[in-house]
Amino acid sequence: MRATTIHGARDIRVEEVPAPELKKPTDAIIKVTAGCICGSDLWPYRGANPVRPGQTIGHECIGVVEEVGSEVRDFKAGDFVVVPFCHCDNTCPHCRNGAQSVCDNLGFTLSGQSEYARVNQADGSLVSTGGVPADDLIASVLALSDVMPTGWHAAVSAGVKAGDTVVVVGDGAVGLSGVLAAATMGAERIIAMSRHEPRQKVARAFGATDIIASRGEDALAEVRELTDGVGVDAALECVGTDEAMTTAIEVTRPGGGVGFVGAPHGVELSARRLFDKNVGVRGGMAPVRRYLPELLDLVLDRRIDPGLVFDLTLPLEESPAGYTAMDERRAIKVLLQP
Amino acid sequence: MRATTIHGARDIRVEEVPAPELKKPTDAIIKVTAGCICGSDLWPYRGANPVRPGQTIGHECIGVVEEVGSEVRDFKAGDFVVVPFCHCDNTCPHCRNGAQSVCDNLGFTLSGQSEYARVNQADGSLVSTGGVPADDLIASVLALSDVMPTGWHAAVSAGVKAGDTVVVVGDGAVGLSGVLAAATMGAERIIAMSRHEPRQKVARAFGATDIIASRGEDALAEVRELTDGVGVDAALECVGTDEAMTTAIEVTRPGGGVGFVGAPHGVELSARRLFDKNVGVRGGMAPVRRYLPELLDLVLDRRIDPGLVFDLTLPLEESPAGYTAMDERRAIKVLLQP
Repeated sequence: MRATTIHGARDIRVEEVPAPELKKPTDAIIKVTAGCICGSDLWPYRGANPVRPGQTIGHECIGVVEEVGSEVRDFKAGDFVVVPFCHCDNTCPHCRNGAQSVCDNLGFTLSGQSEYARVNQADGSLVSTGGVPADDLIASVLALSDVMPTGWHAAVSAGVKAGDTVVVVGDGAVGLSGVLAAATMGAERIIAMSRHEPRQKVARAFGATDIIASRGEDALAEVRELTDGVGVDAALECVGTDEAMTTAIEVTRPGGGVGFVGAPHGVELSARRLFDKNVGVRGGMAPVRRYLPELLDLVLDRRIDPGLVFDLTLPLEESPAGYTAMDERRAIKVLLQP
Repeated sequence: MRATTIHGARDIRVEEVPAPELKKPTDAIIKVTAGCICGSDLWPYRGANPVRPGQTIGHECIGVVEEVGSEVRDFKAGDFVVVPFCHCDNTCPHCRNGAQSVCDNLGFTLSGQSEYARVNQADGSLVSTGGVPADDLIASVLALSDVMPTGWHAAVSAGVKAGDTVVVVGDGAVGLSGVLAAATMGAERIIAMSRHEPRQKVARAFGATDIIASRGEDALAEVRELTDGVGVDAALECVGTDEAMTTAIEVTRPGGGVGFVGAPHGVELSARRLFDKNVGVRGGMAPVRRYLPELLDLVLDRRIDPGLVFDLTLPLEESPAGYTAMDERRAIKVLLQP
């Protein structure tokens, strides 16, 4: 099959590789109809994570079931499905507790930017769209495989509720999805931190009421002013750096909550600071399967449009150009068509 | 007045000092009928915190209003009241958000182990008991000035709910109060970590279903076994050390919550570990005033008996002996009678 592979820093290729095959009776093979590039794919692209030269890359996709293992009961060839980037059996104690991203049988999509991908635990992971979605819904359905549920998890983890004032730190596709999540949950005021005009536009479309373009002390001062010196009820940390986490904690009012979904890189949490402010911190990899049914309904009912984060669509063969565009911040998020 | 003072490490005295006076029109003076020694008083006693030689000590008390400032509307001389160790106006934005321990007009009881104490923000802080409580309720009413609401805050912060499995790390008076809080909130299984028989007894009286006497890796293994390898829904960290926090995080199941109320001493939080487990951490100084009305009702209705944490009662003049008893762990918590 044709697949996006990574050979080293800034060395993304599209080449012929063996198509994935069923390995376990609970597996399924998906014919990918749309995949995309994640901000986290830029870590190995930039050389920050080690790679096995030639390995496939990409964990987000939707598509049509091609083949299922002998123990798969709920799906058959031809079903159109959303593929959560993290696979789960949805029956283990952690899944039943809503922590599907720590499932006892956790797996991941490994070739989402390719023609085919394997899903472990097909019955537990996949969610049917009930037929092929309308063309103009494809981007939003694709967003449900990772980015939108991850923004949603940030809002859930921060404890966002109707009427809240919320800050979103990070204007990548996840941060923007966090804005949409907070708005959908009824947050009254949503302050997006962004200094990139195209991202500010999407943030506003998603429900941001205020934009803060400054950083550091200036940003804190602006939030203080916007909230009469009180701070916000909830902050969504969607970057993963120490600076972003510090900003999130500092803008949050005493007793408020920080939700964090950026994989921590050098983040130092001060227990004393959290104690003094009585601010809660919670987050991690999103339990995508947990949120999928609710979010899919919202998309199919056209009540949310998370696909707005895709501002560049390329054929699979041009995958390397997609990485360059995202690396140079010329694109927020790139959709790939096999 | 007669007051407990501290002159340095292990130098506690009872001596004559000037009685507190009204400083602001929102103040009240309380004639203390019962005070007590807090585990946190042992930090300066052991030389871990600097002191001003001769300063009064003690932040927990109940008693009778002696005198009120000109702006105090809701209390008058003769009222029997619970005095939260942290005083608040109960009207500022933080108080309205339930974070009374970060009130804009925060104050503290400074002479709770004495004949008289001053309360700032009397109207916002004090709660009337509706007359002098019965003799056998005094200890439990006194427990409401700090220790019981602090254990309660640990449970609230950890997100304890009916049916939960809970671990309480720390068998001091706060940890024991945490057991009682979790039981009152309907936790089904409560695992108390304690290796002191008198404390184990109180823990069981408060609702602990299991006791773990080991520590470190052994304790983790025991919790794993008790929970079929899953971990607990909520952990209450009631010590403030790095070991206690690590234990609390490790015993908590993916997606669960840790509530911490021990003032952090050398605690290092790993954002990566929290992220990988999707475990939330929340805590701080208890907003005592927020919980007081509910807890006072429970005490006056004799539905909870938090006063069981007091296992030694001494006259105020013997305050130094009370410190020794708590320091040597011969007493869980000491009640002082002026």
